Amino acid sequence: IIVYRLPWTWKCSKFLMKSIHAGLNTVAAILVIISLVAVFENRNARNIPHLYSLHGWVGLTAVILYFLQLLLGFFIFLLPWAPLSLRAVFMPIHVYSGLLIFGTVIVTTLMGVTEKLFFVLKNPAYSTFPPEGVFTNTLGLLILVFGALIFWIVTRPQWKRPKEPNSTFLQTNGGTTEGVEGSMATNSGNNMDKSDSELNNEVAARKRNLALEEAGQRSTM
Amino acid sequence: IIVYRLPWTWKCSKFLMKSIHAGLNTVAAILVIISLVAVFENRNARNIPHLYSLHGWVGLTAVILYFLQLLLGFFIFLLPWAPLSLRAVFMPIHVYSGLLIFGTVIVTTLMGVTEKLFFVLKNPAYSTFPPEGVFTNTLGLLILVFGALIFWIVTRPQWKRPKEPNSTFLQTNGGTTEGVEGSMATNSGNNMDKSDSELNNEVAARKRNLALEEAGQRSTM
Repeated sequence: IIVYRLPWTWKCSKFLMKSIHAGLNTVAAILVIISLVAVFENRNARNIPHLYSLHGWVGLTAVILYFLQLLLGFFIFLLPWAPLSLRAVFMPIHVYSGLLIFGTVIVTTLMGVTEKLFFVLKNPAYSTFPPEGVFTNTLGLLILVFGALIFWIVTRPQWKRPKEPNSTFLQTNGGTTEGVEGSMATNSGNNMDKSDSELNNEVAARKRNLALEEAGQRSTM
Repeated sequence: IIVYRLPWTWKCSKFLMKSIHAGLNTVAAILVIISLVAVFENRNARNIPHLYSLHGWVGLTAVILYFLQLLLGFFIFLLPWAPLSLRAVFMPIHVYSGLLIFGTVIVTTLMGVTEKLFFVLKNPAYSTFPPEGVFTNTLGLLILVFGALIFWIVTRPQWKRPKEPNSTFLQTNGGTTEGVEGSMATNSGNNMDKSDSELNNEVAARKRNLALEEAGQRSTM
């Protein structure tokens, strides 16, 4: 989620950053599959029913949405075939659902921690403040703080990656361009002939990024 | 949270909308106090210890942050005494923490539901999919959907309330204005002499709002 928000990566190509974003999320998806197989096999071995709790329902929802997000993101944003208009329409939804899924995963984790604590802490009881309880509550709070930090990083406008003025998707006729990659053309066409070296200048890139807000075509997050 | 995001309220004064926002949140705060007193007295009567679970810890954090948010919001945004520079610095934090607290409340609710289900559903056990379990899991999912809808409404740029061009905080010297209310002056001073009737035009207001993004002084949410 935060891979585009490191200013020192703004000089890297958009395609490289997209690939890193997709690659990291694919690694995460593989880890999800491994851990879900482990959970289901463990429950089978102990004859525990599957997916009866709210933790299970919300977690299943998050996993389904996550794989859908990965698949749609791959076909619409990483492969070069999707039309710009589709990318423009889908980008705010992709950004929104990415953050929503992230939040849902935090919720699922904290419900899982809650379940586990009530299952495991019988003697001494959870309600007598045993060290395991206090320790795991603290872990839960730290998971929440982690979520809050990612949410902060992802919503700061000054850390939003600027659009490439020399994008391959950009049409030369500024009046008719539209779409995610081309949305800047109508508003800052005077930036188009700037050199690559200036593109690498982070301050200039940031200024350009703020000007691009005017287009209103990109998600605000 | 969503009170500013109804386009038909954009013709109402900012102060009225602020008062409604603050008023509704004050009502919510009173309900929080009443329900917390009920919870603590109920637990005292049944000799159940307080605040031992992760639900309790996260909930307490949310309540403390909520009252802090309400207090700071009242003094910085509702009372007229705070300097514009303070409002400008505090606005993105206020918006961020408002959504963070909202999310934390959703988390707390779902952990509370999880706890309660494991406490209550012994016979028939929660794991045998009793109607109460399925019903309450569905309630939990609906709470999550509610949170997702609010998050969607609050992050759409086209539903962001436009700034008033005739704000009382606006200085006549556009070159030196700064702050939340005045941030538009340097970027769209040509809008300043537009009539009130046009201010009431929602489409025009929305266009002006998008242009204001350029200032980069307001939170993007």
